[in-house]
Amino acid sequence: MKLYGYWRSSAAYRVRIALHLKGLAFESIAVHLVKDGGQQHQAAYTALNPSHLVPTLVDGDLVLNQSLAIIEYLDDKYPDIALYPQNAAEKAKVKALALDIACEIHPLNNLRVQQYLVNTLPLPESAKLTWSHHWMQQGFEAVEQQLAHSAGKYCFGDTITMADICLVPQVYNANRFKLDMTRFANIRRVVDNCNQQPAFIAALPENQDDAEH
Amino acid sequence: MKLYGYWRSSAAYRVRIALHLKGLAFESIAVHLVKDGGQQHQAAYTALNPSHLVPTLVDGDLVLNQSLAIIEYLDDKYPDIALYPQNAAEKAKVKALALDIACEIHPLNNLRVQQYLVNTLPLPESAKLTWSHHWMQQGFEAVEQQLAHSAGKYCFGDTITMADICLVPQVYNANRFKLDMTRFANIRRVVDNCNQQPAFIAALPENQDDAEH
Repeated sequence: MKLYGYWRSSAAYRVRIALHLKGLAFESIAVHLVKDGGQQHQAAYTALNPSHLVPTLVDGDLVLNQSLAIIEYLDDKYPDIALYPQNAAEKAKVKALALDIACEIHPLNNLRVQQYLVNTLPLPESAKLTWSHHWMQQGFEAVEQQLAHSAGKYCFGDTITMADICLVPQVYNANRFKLDMTRFANIRRVVDNCNQQPAFIAALPENQDDAEH
Repeated sequence: MKLYGYWRSSAAYRVRIALHLKGLAFESIAVHLVKDGGQQHQAAYTALNPSHLVPTLVDGDLVLNQSLAIIEYLDDKYPDIALYPQNAAEKAKVKALALDIACEIHPLNNLRVQQYLVNTLPLPESAKLTWSHHWMQQGFEAVEQQLAHSAGKYCFGDTITMADICLVPQVYNANRFKLDMTRFANIRRVVDNCNQQPAFIAALPENQDDAEH
């Protein structure tokens, strides 16, 4: 399998965690989101991913975009170390929490939105931080409340699920944007627990070949 | 089952389509997103949905948010009239297309973002339209290209899937915001086909009890 990604993309980071959790070998291909005006806009890449976004997984004939679709495909194909509970209601709760992050926090803060804010509107550079903090804070409030009911060592009890896979990269991003995480005690505890696991360590942005230090 | 929604919310609209496709009875409870400063912010509702968003499904003890999590829960519990192909690779392609809409178009255009643009930044009222058109156009370009490969009568061949359930409300929204859809011939054809089906007609915003004409 080949994974087209970028070290600091939270969506690619999610897929890396899932691949490592399942112990699957893959080749990483770096798509630099900033260099050359963004390599995700080059024809060779948009032929694979018409959304101009990372990640893309290539598995034989299958070319797949959208991190959650990729991860659930891996979960279907390699069901050992399942990323969702078996019970339909519990599975749905995990999925809702993952989507609270993937649909309500991440899309508002990714690179293309940041670029639009300062290049197109155009707002001053500082608006990127204000904007990101607003949506992350609002999103984390909701996640924190859910974790108060559901979390054990991880987001849902003591087993790693899709919710953890989405939460860890989002918090990494929040730290990068210097969001004050003090009040999000449940989130911090769960993320700390995840970050002690080898799969999460292997997937860290700074541990990728294309990382810039 | 009780569905908390709002006639014009695209996310609630998706869930209504799925419920009608599966022939499931449900009680609709209106949460007015504008009146009283937004009923989604009232304590009685945020106790069910800490994200302050619609929809929420209540099914016995289960209280579930996030439209895609709700629909996949229904699909697990009532597998007749399946919303995904059985084959893992095809299922993943459908899911990726649904997420191209649910993660890349919808979150950037929903009410809270529109409100933030004009009330908080603050930008002039016209910015709402420019902003929405930008993200819808960019998102539809990618969807249109995918449909050129995958579509038959519907997004994936001739069977209604989750991708159609996400596409139809997004196009309804685009029409409401007067986006020029001329170049999106595949999208228009698929949506026209969906909108002839009873489940899609029953789910239309204007056919809901809380619709305002």
